[in-house]
Amino acid sequence: MELTAAEVAQKLGGTVEGDPSIRLNSLAKIEEGTPGSLTFLANPKYEDFLYTTKASAVVVNTDFTPASRIDLTLIRVSNAFEAFVALMAQFKFQERKSGIEPQSFIHPTAQVGQNVYVGAFAYIGAHAVIGDNTQIFPQTYIGDEVHIGHNCNLFAGVRIYQGCRVGSNVTIHAGTVIGADGFGFAPQELNGYAKVPQIGNVIIEDNVEIGANTTIDRATLGSTIIRRGVKLDNLIQIAHNVEVGEHTVIAAQAGVAGSAKIGKYCMIGGQVGIVGHLSIADQTKIAAQSGIGSTVKKCGQTLQGSPAFEISDYKRSYVHFRNLSEIEARLRALERKNT
Amino acid sequence: MELTAAEVAQKLGGTVEGDPSIRLNSLAKIEEGTPGSLTFLANPKYEDFLYTTKASAVVVNTDFTPASRIDLTLIRVSNAFEAFVALMAQFKFQERKSGIEPQSFIHPTAQVGQNVYVGAFAYIGAHAVIGDNTQIFPQTYIGDEVHIGHNCNLFAGVRIYQGCRVGSNVTIHAGTVIGADGFGFAPQELNGYAKVPQIGNVIIEDNVEIGANTTIDRATLGSTIIRRGVKLDNLIQIAHNVEVGEHTVIAAQAGVAGSAKIGKYCMIGGQVGIVGHLSIADQTKIAAQSGIGSTVKKCGQTLQGSPAFEISDYKRSYVHFRNLSEIEARLRALERKNT
Amino acid sequence: MELTAAEVAQKLGGTVEGDPSIRLNSLAKIEEGTPGSLTFLANPKYEDFLYTTKASAVVVNTDFTPASRIDLTLIRVSNAFEAFVALMAQFKFQERKSGIEPQSFIHPTAQVGQNVYVGAFAYIGAHAVIGDNTQIFPQTYIGDEVHIGHNCNLFAGVRIYQGCRVGSNVTIHAGTVIGADGFGFAPQELNGYAKVPQIGNVIIEDNVEIGANTTIDRATLGSTIIRRGVKLDNLIQIAHNVEVGEHTVIAAQAGVAGSAKIGKYCMIGGQVGIVGHLSIADQTKIAAQSGIGSTVKKCGQTLQGSPAFEISDYKRSYVHFRNLSEIEARLRALERKNT
Repeated sequence: MELTAAEVAQKLGGTVEGDPSIRLNSLAKIEEGTPGSLTFLANPKYEDFLYTTKASAVVVNTDFTPASRIDLTLIRVSNAFEAFVALMAQFKFQERKSGIEPQSFIHPTAQVGQNVYVGAFAYIGAHAVIGDNTQIFPQTYIGDEVHIGHNCNLFAGVRIYQGCRVGSNVTIHAGTVIGADGFGFAPQELNGYAKVPQIGNVIIEDNVEIGANTTIDRATLGSTIIRRGVKLDNLIQIAHNVEVGEHTVIAAQAGVAGSAKIGKYCMIGGQVGIVGHLSIADQTKIAAQSGIGSTVKKCGQTLQGSPAFEISDYKRSYVHFRNLSEIEARLRALERKNT
Repeated sequence: MELTAAEVAQKLGGTVEGDPSIRLNSLAKIEEGTPGSLTFLANPKYEDFLYTTKASAVVVNTDFTPASRIDLTLIRVSNAFEAFVALMAQFKFQERKSGIEPQSFIHPTAQVGQNVYVGAFAYIGAHAVIGDNTQIFPQTYIGDEVHIGHNCNLFAGVRIYQGCRVGSNVTIHAGTVIGADGFGFAPQELNGYAKVPQIGNVIIEDNVEIGANTTIDRATLGSTIIRRGVKLDNLIQIAHNVEVGEHTVIAAQAGVAGSAKIGKYCMIGGQVGIVGHLSIADQTKIAAQSGIGSTVKKCGQTLQGSPAFEISDYKRSYVHFRNLSEIEARLRALERKNT
Repeated sequence: MELTAAEVAQKLGGTVEGDPSIRLNSLAKIEEGTPGSLTFLANPKYEDFLYTTKASAVVVNTDFTPASRIDLTLIRVSNAFEAFVALMAQFKFQERKSGIEPQSFIHPTAQVGQNVYVGAFAYIGAHAVIGDNTQIFPQTYIGDEVHIGHNCNLFAGVRIYQGCRVGSNVTIHAGTVIGADGFGFAPQELNGYAKVPQIGNVIIEDNVEIGANTTIDRATLGSTIIRRGVKLDNLIQIAHNVEVGEHTVIAAQAGVAGSAKIGKYCMIGGQVGIVGHLSIADQTKIAAQSGIGSTVKKCGQTLQGSPAFEISDYKRSYVHFRNLSEIEARLRALERKNT
């Protein structure tokens, strides 16, 4: 795709300052701009790069005033970040695919909607239902009786076990496993463990995005539920019977143990662990690597530590932890004085 | 499957109190019961749900006495939990599959037993051996010379590298990788690292269950060994030359570094890390997110922390950690008094 | 493969002490030697096993003097460890594969080099390029426009998204995902999050090895870069726009958040977490389970803790943390004296 600065400005409802005919064929971060690329400046702390970037043009906010003289072409818009993101969507890395590649397997009882892509070596089981405009990339496994909504993207090697439900506008990245058995074993009197059958399923609501190699286990009974708008990163573990509330965001390698209920609009950091059978209030923020060991009742807190408590208290305690040798030495000195 | 309460009671060797002809077509948790569903009450802390559940019948212990009046049908058995689990096994989510789907690849030198399922796009390499009644789901990879026992379930996209051994009654969930190279590199004098070849294998004994997207590396020399009865959850890392003792249970996202030897009947929490070249005594319990940095000699301890020590000591120390600001302030006050 | 001790000595440029005609058919660790096996002794702390091993011969350093009498055959070389590793490479677990298995999919516009292996159910997209002597194992996904160099090994079920670049002599183990979308979402005024398109790619330079089920996300703009010689273990998360410097080694289950820049020759322990948008100096060592929350400017430090600081300081503080109950009791005693 190649556009002039004038064409870009028109798309974005902006104005050009500089050369409107300059040709732009790629998008770049301001510190990595190359001739022919268009970049943007939204965060003032990157302004220094504006005077050194090799990009040909830059999208800036309407009210932006450069501190020094610049040579490159400016495209002024009301919100530089949003305008640039809108452009990125048009430069997206992969065009929509469609059609059924002949080396795929679609069970005769499966229902496949309009304008669906099914890649080679994908497997669609008995009585599965695939909504319109959904892309099923190669080597994906859709078990028997799975329902997938409209406009979904299931990338290569996604596995969805029997009976799970996926809403519309859902994206699932490569290698993610939905609906494997929950980890349920009952200790036996004589020796070892007996498996507790896992006969529930997983329900993923609309507008969810799930990263690569994440695992979401099916419920023992009932459903493990990922509510609408949730965003899950890579390598996350969601155990059986967990519920993740609307629009909650979870970063990579976090884990949620069985039957935990996570509220809406929470933000959960990377490598966080959440114990089972508890609930977490809406809008809770949890710092990376923290562990949550008991129910969080009050909304909107930010927590850190393992087990976690209020983040500013944690940071204060941690400062003293770093100085514990000195604190202990002070104590020893006092003891000497007091004998 | 639909049964009357009388039929369920007969299956379980129990007695009906209420309507023996009521029809039951699903199983549910007591807090999620719907008309037509059968539920159970084993843990007294859930008793309140008994008076509000919409389920049609409930399995209870013989000696259970409800605190209030209830309308739904009771099925009394000697152990409500065990009886209900036995029922669940009959409602299991997926029927056994059998037959060889034509789009699979089975090397002419591979031996496949009786009543085996091989799904489409599964790959079974040269000289591999698959025991009777084993299910190999679609897109699974069984490398050359791999041996798999009887009655195993290998779900979609499991990968087993060349020469590994899997016993009987073993279940491995989707995306798990058995036998990738251990992480062994020797620093070079000039620069970088040279690979240490990993020429051992992985041995998985009978009655093991392994979750989804877990990785178990092949040994450098000899074998990485998962002893009989072990249960591993999702996204676990087992490094080269590790041995996990009989009936040990490991929760999701835990990692065990190279050549560690873990005892029998241990319980290892989620996100635990275990350093290499150490051993852990039988029946050790390790709290979630803990790190084990040295050999654990005494059996039956419960450990927490990173590095971990006795859990009650950890909890006591952590209480003071939370109050460190206050402790330091008290110390400062004393210092002022003593100057 | 079977060799006599004399033949092994000749291969290694060493000398035999004992029976030069003894036949050796396998390699083993010294504590696991069986008759017919060859083992080695490099680390003196394993010397005790020399007097009990059932191995038939052992490779030792030229200057090694046994403390007791031994019966097995010695092969003396200048560096026992390196010599043994060289032998292991010849006993490697899997022979090179070649040829195109007919059930694979290769897009007509893809370019495949000389002596390449493409396993069944592998998918090679439009305009992809595969270099000479590369092995693409079964069920691997190579997206459109992906370039792979020479002498690479991509094991079963590796997924590489559209447009990514892989150098030469690169090994990627089963289930690893390269190029899934970075985790980028912008909060919306009304509700939920809007996806920030991820239009960059991943670049993996030469001589990199990546373990199983690891995930490396594509950049938002530009490239996520893994520099030459880097070794990544299993289940690692590398987020969008990260750069990992030459010859850095990262252990299993570590995670690196977006836009972090990691230096050369770093050694990063298992389950470490690194926050985004920071940089880490060359030759930094990070202990397992640590968290890095801010830029590390000084080269060559070893760090521990979450957040991490100098490891010997951490260890000292942790000793006092273990004794915090006692420290607090001492403080209380002093307070009593001072009232």
